[in-house]
Amino acid sequence: MSTALLTDHYELTMLQAALRSGAAHRRAVFEVFARHLPGGRRYGVVAGTGRVLDSLESFRFRPDELEFLATAVDAQTLEFLADYRFSGHVYGYREGDVYFPASPIMVVEGTFAEAVLLETMILSVLNHDCAIASAASRMTTAAAGRPIIEMGSRRTHEWAAVAAARAAYIAGFSSTSNLMASRLYGVPTAGTAAHAFTLLHDSEQAAFEAQVATLGASTTLLVDTYDVAQAVRTAVEVAGSKLGAVRIDSGDLAVAAQEVREQLDSLGAFSTRILVTSDLDEYAIAALAAAPVDGYGVGTSVVTGSGVPTAALVYKLVARETATGKLEPVAKRSVGKPSRGGRKQAYRLLDDAGRYETEFVTTSGTAPDGGVPLLHQLVRDGEVIGAEPLEAARARHREAIALLPQEALHLGRGYAAIPTEFA
Amino acid sequence: MSTALLTDHYELTMLQAALRSGAAHRRAVFEVFARHLPGGRRYGVVAGTGRVLDSLESFRFRPDELEFLATAVDAQTLEFLADYRFSGHVYGYREGDVYFPASPIMVVEGTFAEAVLLETMILSVLNHDCAIASAASRMTTAAAGRPIIEMGSRRTHEWAAVAAARAAYIAGFSSTSNLMASRLYGVPTAGTAAHAFTLLHDSEQAAFEAQVATLGASTTLLVDTYDVAQAVRTAVEVAGSKLGAVRIDSGDLAVAAQEVREQLDSLGAFSTRILVTSDLDEYAIAALAAAPVDGYGVGTSVVTGSGVPTAALVYKLVARETATGKLEPVAKRSVGKPSRGGRKQAYRLLDDAGRYETEFVTTSGTAPDGGVPLLHQLVRDGEVIGAEPLEAARARHREAIALLPQEALHLGRGYAAIPTEFA
Repeated sequence: MSTALLTDHYELTMLQAALRSGAAHRRAVFEVFARHLPGGRRYGVVAGTGRVLDSLESFRFRPDELEFLATAVDAQTLEFLADYRFSGHVYGYREGDVYFPASPIMVVEGTFAEAVLLETMILSVLNHDCAIASAASRMTTAAAGRPIIEMGSRRTHEWAAVAAARAAYIAGFSSTSNLMASRLYGVPTAGTAAHAFTLLHDSEQAAFEAQVATLGASTTLLVDTYDVAQAVRTAVEVAGSKLGAVRIDSGDLAVAAQEVREQLDSLGAFSTRILVTSDLDEYAIAALAAAPVDGYGVGTSVVTGSGVPTAALVYKLVARETATGKLEPVAKRSVGKPSRGGRKQAYRLLDDAGRYETEFVTTSGTAPDGGVPLLHQLVRDGEVIGAEPLEAARARHREAIALLPQEALHLGRGYAAIPTEFA
Repeated sequence: MSTALLTDHYELTMLQAALRSGAAHRRAVFEVFARHLPGGRRYGVVAGTGRVLDSLESFRFRPDELEFLATAVDAQTLEFLADYRFSGHVYGYREGDVYFPASPIMVVEGTFAEAVLLETMILSVLNHDCAIASAASRMTTAAAGRPIIEMGSRRTHEWAAVAAARAAYIAGFSSTSNLMASRLYGVPTAGTAAHAFTLLHDSEQAAFEAQVATLGASTTLLVDTYDVAQAVRTAVEVAGSKLGAVRIDSGDLAVAAQEVREQLDSLGAFSTRILVTSDLDEYAIAALAAAPVDGYGVGTSVVTGSGVPTAALVYKLVARETATGKLEPVAKRSVGKPSRGGRKQAYRLLDDAGRYETEFVTTSGTAPDGGVPLLHQLVRDGEVIGAEPLEAARARHREAIALLPQEALHLGRGYAAIPTEFA
């Protein structure tokens, strides 16, 4: 399906007015950035870049869409839309990288007409995916190497769920419950059974036997439908001491995990893992660090950005061609909403140990000594050239996290982990 | 596109194990309800029902999806999925109605196999749409008759944006910026120009002239790109005193609206309306009640549920057929997650003035005297019979709000506006 109508009405009225005034074909530069990192976070995570590139390729106004728009815009505008193909350039931070206030994470160059049309789509994708990845990254840190399954599909819009699974995987989650995320993006899936499966059968034992019969002893049995201790006993009786895992989904998880570990060990099920779920967020995960837990399932908190469901990214015109053909910086002067005019370049400066020290944003065109360039070309003359496998973004995120200053990984509220400098 | 893969992996592993054990074909009843109203809200708003019915009709496993699933499930399960058509019954609260803790807003009856597969899709749709509508309804109340444009598409996932526009419209918003919401659901759209349009032109005057030339003097001019007072002067010079509206998007909106109103009046533009936008939520809207504002634009806060981005609805097995063919109530006993077994009926009891007094939920099958039945059949033997126009849901919501106890409309935190009684 075309993504072209996933767009605010005013992009089309601006287009119509600019076509009429003649300004529509002026060259323009739009930049995506966040004025601040919401929620007292220390860093943001770039995610959604790959989805923007996919959406760009299906951003076409087809005959039935043009017919729908015929009452909203004039004939000249419809004609422009019928032929619309983005023919400009897009540059962006690499997916999985981190960002800070004012980092120009995406730059769109084209005519005003072709670039303004992309505003809503680009912001929808990046605001959602960056918010999820930024929350997920903190959870990955809190889990300290234990795997996390993303299982929040039911707590967010059905398609947002797919993008959330993708973003969480970039940020270090090990798998997702969402089948479409596997189909579209190759994210590994996981999942065995809910309480309904136990309740369906005439006894917990019958349910466990049915599950083990088809999924094998390496499966995960859910043990808190009735009585946890009784369920663990039944689980090991049914599956044997090679039972893969048990899942606990209620109660005081630290206490329950300790009790279940002792019980499993006493039954000889030393290799049986303990998975915990139930309203976990990064703080709850951190609080379970000392508990004998082998993996986490996280739902609501990750798909809703753990209190920050949107990333506060904006898409601003920073330069445009004048009547005389020159590209000039522009910026609005609205109260309390700072904007800096001019096409930016961004570099990351490193300290002697190779860790991130400063985010350097400049309109000068001159690269700072030793600065690592952060903007890479993603689209050239309308053609996508920056697509990459999801695993590349996931690996990049792991590397970026390793290079952040240590204090960036604290869960408490604070300021951006490194300062943004302008030149 | 099929909605069938917008599903958690474990629905399929449960299906496989139940097909193997033979329990898959037992009759089952699942209910959707919320254990509590999040965020100290006084009521929830049912939204998404129509989208669930649409998704149900496209919930099919097609050949390429079956091929994708071939490594995840066994041959018997694939065979079941290939023929999958929901053939049971669905009952639900009417879209636009209000709900309270434990209200069974949707009831799904079928075999376990066919009903369990729908869990993720139903919860994704209802948890998202109910959260948005519940927030939007409070904003509509705070606006006290002034129209609100929903304009948050850029702050949420691109498809969540479409559903959010639909849910906000049910809850009383007047229009949306989102073109796809108009295309798919007929929600009226609105929008004229962003700051980029002014910045594109060589002067604010040139931008206003371009906009008025094509959209007419009844358009809305954005007046805070540079200096508001200067912009208002220019706007009236360009469009005349019949200018439709001005929009203010920054600063202290109450002060700015007062100043702009005085300026417009002094210029003879008495009928020019003032629209305000800029991070508004229900509290900010309420705080502008005394300001000379004619309409609001709301973005981030409505599409993120104003602090409550998901509705906490769950989908629980409450009854299933036993080995002897009898339908029996079931409920898990997990700590801190109360569930009540048995197929429910729900009625609303009214006081002498006809206002809502009690939410009455019963497993007895006996209707209380004068109780208004809340569950209506939406699907019969797999066939959707409960679809209705969006305007019906919008009208119903308006009626429901009028019948809530007065204190239900307070914005502060509190308890559910009416108690839920069980029999």
